[in-house]
Amino acid sequence: MLKEWVKEERPTDEVIAERLEKARAELAVRQLEIKEKGLPVLVIMDGWGAAGKGSVLGKVIKNLDPRFFKCETLTEPTDEEKRKPFLYRYFVKIPKAGAIAFFDGSWMGEVTNMYLHGEIDEKKYKSHLTSIKRFERQLNDNGYLMVKFFFHIGEKTQKKRLKDLESDTYTKWRVSDKDRWQNKHYDKCFDVFDEYIEATNQFVAPWYFIDSSSKKWAELQMTEILIASIDTAIANAANQQKAPMLQNTFPMKPLPKLAEVDLKKSISEEEYKKELDRLQKRLSELHNELYHKKVPVIIAYEGWDAAGKGGNIKRVAAALDPRGYEVHPIASPEPAEKARHYLWRFWNRLPKDGHIAIFDRTWYGRVMVERIEGFCTENDWQRAYNEINEFEKELDDWNAVIIKFWVHIDKDTQLARFTDRQNTPEKQWKITDEDWRNREKWDAYEAAIDEMISKTSTKFAPWHILESNDKKYARIKALKIIIKAIEEKLVGIEKE
Amino acid sequence: MLKEWVKEERPTDEVIAERLEKARAELAVRQLEIKEKGLPVLVIMDGWGAAGKGSVLGKVIKNLDPRFFKCETLTEPTDEEKRKPFLYRYFVKIPKAGAIAFFDGSWMGEVTNMYLHGEIDEKKYKSHLTSIKRFERQLNDNGYLMVKFFFHIGEKTQKKRLKDLESDTYTKWRVSDKDRWQNKHYDKCFDVFDEYIEATNQFVAPWYFIDSSSKKWAELQMTEILIASIDTAIANAANQQKAPMLQNTFPMKPLPKLAEVDLKKSISEEEYKKELDRLQKRLSELHNELYHKKVPVIIAYEGWDAAGKGGNIKRVAAALDPRGYEVHPIASPEPAEKARHYLWRFWNRLPKDGHIAIFDRTWYGRVMVERIEGFCTENDWQRAYNEINEFEKELDDWNAVIIKFWVHIDKDTQLARFTDRQNTPEKQWKITDEDWRNREKWDAYEAAIDEMISKTSTKFAPWHILESNDKKYARIKALKIIIKAIEEKLVGIEKE
Repeated sequence: MLKEWVKEERPTDEVIAERLEKARAELAVRQLEIKEKGLPVLVIMDGWGAAGKGSVLGKVIKNLDPRFFKCETLTEPTDEEKRKPFLYRYFVKIPKAGAIAFFDGSWMGEVTNMYLHGEIDEKKYKSHLTSIKRFERQLNDNGYLMVKFFFHIGEKTQKKRLKDLESDTYTKWRVSDKDRWQNKHYDKCFDVFDEYIEATNQFVAPWYFIDSSSKKWAELQMTEILIASIDTAIANAANQQKAPMLQNTFPMKPLPKLAEVDLKKSISEEEYKKELDRLQKRLSELHNELYHKKVPVIIAYEGWDAAGKGGNIKRVAAALDPRGYEVHPIASPEPAEKARHYLWRFWNRLPKDGHIAIFDRTWYGRVMVERIEGFCTENDWQRAYNEINEFEKELDDWNAVIIKFWVHIDKDTQLARFTDRQNTPEKQWKITDEDWRNREKWDAYEAAIDEMISKTSTKFAPWHILESNDKKYARIKALKIIIKAIEEKLVGIEKE
Repeated sequence: MLKEWVKEERPTDEVIAERLEKARAELAVRQLEIKEKGLPVLVIMDGWGAAGKGSVLGKVIKNLDPRFFKCETLTEPTDEEKRKPFLYRYFVKIPKAGAIAFFDGSWMGEVTNMYLHGEIDEKKYKSHLTSIKRFERQLNDNGYLMVKFFFHIGEKTQKKRLKDLESDTYTKWRVSDKDRWQNKHYDKCFDVFDEYIEATNQFVAPWYFIDSSSKKWAELQMTEILIASIDTAIANAANQQKAPMLQNTFPMKPLPKLAEVDLKKSISEEEYKKELDRLQKRLSELHNELYHKKVPVIIAYEGWDAAGKGGNIKRVAAALDPRGYEVHPIASPEPAEKARHYLWRFWNRLPKDGHIAIFDRTWYGRVMVERIEGFCTENDWQRAYNEINEFEKELDDWNAVIIKFWVHIDKDTQLARFTDRQNTPEKQWKITDEDWRNREKWDAYEAAIDEMISKTSTKFAPWHILESNDKKYARIKALKIIIKAIEEKLVGIEKE
């Protein structure tokens, strides 16, 4: 896991400072909520020596009310503690309801150290891993939020930091023999940490890596993750149902809220024709290449009624060889589909590699219409954000191009288009009572869509908003995004 | 996991036949329940070539209604399936609500084979493991029961079976090149299977090993595990709460129901005095030895009011050096205890190694008084059986001697003792209104105790029932059990 981890690009100092100010204030608010809801929170901080855990923790707690948190430093067990079961000294320090406990060091450090230094054999080590998994799952099952951080720095950074600390009389004491040993055996430690993290990375208690190359950046990452995890736990506590929401561990690509989208964008008729022609030709070429290189493409369309999804899809499909693509209009599920996992009908509609599948409405129905109309339980749609991200991760692992469009218009434009449809005989089939009923729920839908986009716009499958008050503008934008995504994937394949 | 697995001793053919008859009938009943409750069940059968999966499956389904189950043979993916995402061919075959799907072979076989034969590298292999964990957890979260079996045979057995199959013209076709390769590289395969099983052994989808040395025995194990897992899933479906019960994976030691216990057992006064003296001397010696060898001992007393717990504990404690033991009377939890995981107060009372802790009432309050009086939710006490087994497993891993007593009397004896207490001034403090109220709930308690004993009598921490209509008989029995358990532990330590 640590091996495969891709660091996020570090923002500029200015951006960090700005986000940090906001995050610190938010965390203070969360602490009050924790207190109010009686939620116990256990924060585990592990990582490399000299990664800066201690000083980051010092920063994080600065804004918190000291009555409702506790810090525990857990290095070597005392002789007394060694006479108790392995987990004893941790279990007796778990926080009470409404409080946060920060553990600087944890059972991870203890068992990996013992294993690395040959104090326990592989069998005992594995038995400890099993105990740890049980312990962490039990805490979760009993209403605890666990957030587990691994503070990561490279071998060279560690070496330099240890040297700097040692060269100063005042900080010298902070470098232990174990730290020096760790740096000398960095690769060996890395492998053991990596395996440990993989073995104990449970869905109910996932690991987060903190890029600790700079203190403020580390503080920001930790604070933002804490906030998100607390929010998940508070939502779960409010909704005591089976299979609660999990903490999100997928890297996200933030997008603006719908209300912030500038819908005035447009294109001239002349420009549109020219661009449409050019882009369709290019897409047609790419389709050929996709076919030969066996790259699958999934294009997902969601959008307001009368936003222009149909016309948009038409312009994309027009560029494609009919033998190599399929459009799937998604209606309500059939009985055989209802009797299975809700993603089953989408798995059944996946294209072969080298083919393109266009979905006119998608699996996102779960968190829009099914949510709003009560076709599934609250727990079902709350869980679905992560389930959908996991589904799309499978498509990404399969090396598919994944493109998700939200075709966006404002309420007035929708009214104008509905009225036009109503008044034009040959368009009347396109407008139903249901469309009018949905329109009445615009605000509820808008909130649901904002939540959907913010929770499912992952780096590997981000949403794209198509400003479609001018349908032509939206069509050109869609074609450009599709072309770019395919080109990038093809370049990526060349490189492999 | 496979490495550490300890086979259960195979029962005699007679016992197998008897249990099998019962289990087959029960499984048929469970199938109807599944249908009625709309529970989808996915049964995965993996294991060694020639372990007999196919023929065991043939036996298992013989008693089932063919309208509500399906068997899928999943060996190599077809060329068409290879053009879809890795999990595609499995996902499209998941059962519908109310039905069972048996997968003969699964994603385990596919990925371990590819990895063993160098068709995928370690990175891809690990990515598949992550996908598999997500897939299995999603099925569970969406209400599916997954039961995963690994059919295990040794290298020599496999070799012999393959040879036998090959030597017969009619069965020759059943031996594939992959089977032969597997037997030739048994150890390498064993390591990969072991790691795979460990990596994918999630609490919500645990692995079960089937000792496949004989077909009927394999069928019995599979059928009994299926029944227990279905029962857990049905109970969870009825109780849609957070953190459902998990399938049990601890080996159990069955005990009789309370109603079946013979309470007429007694001891003469003379015999009692002689034995008491002898046993206390022996326990005293052992206490010394325990202290020197740093073996911790946990003795847990539960029992009916007025069953004689106090007097029993007194006779045990009398044999011990006061510096080396402590008795913990357990009352209702304090506020600081209530604000934490319910096992916290017991972790806090664990002895040091070499010491003895005697608990007068225990963590089992969760599934008795807290259950009956509604001091915790249904979900809480249902989950507690497994949580307690896990807690006691920690004590076992710590190499503690664990002894659990149920001090048992019948209802008439309790009445006689209550009345005696009421009528004897110096005993009146021992009887309260609560005792009388509890007595009114005798039947509810008896059902709860039977369930508790059947669900928490693990091989590593079994219950012992003390027949205490004759208190003296119970005291002698307790001392004998304690002595035997300590002696066995000390012998075990010598051997290590």
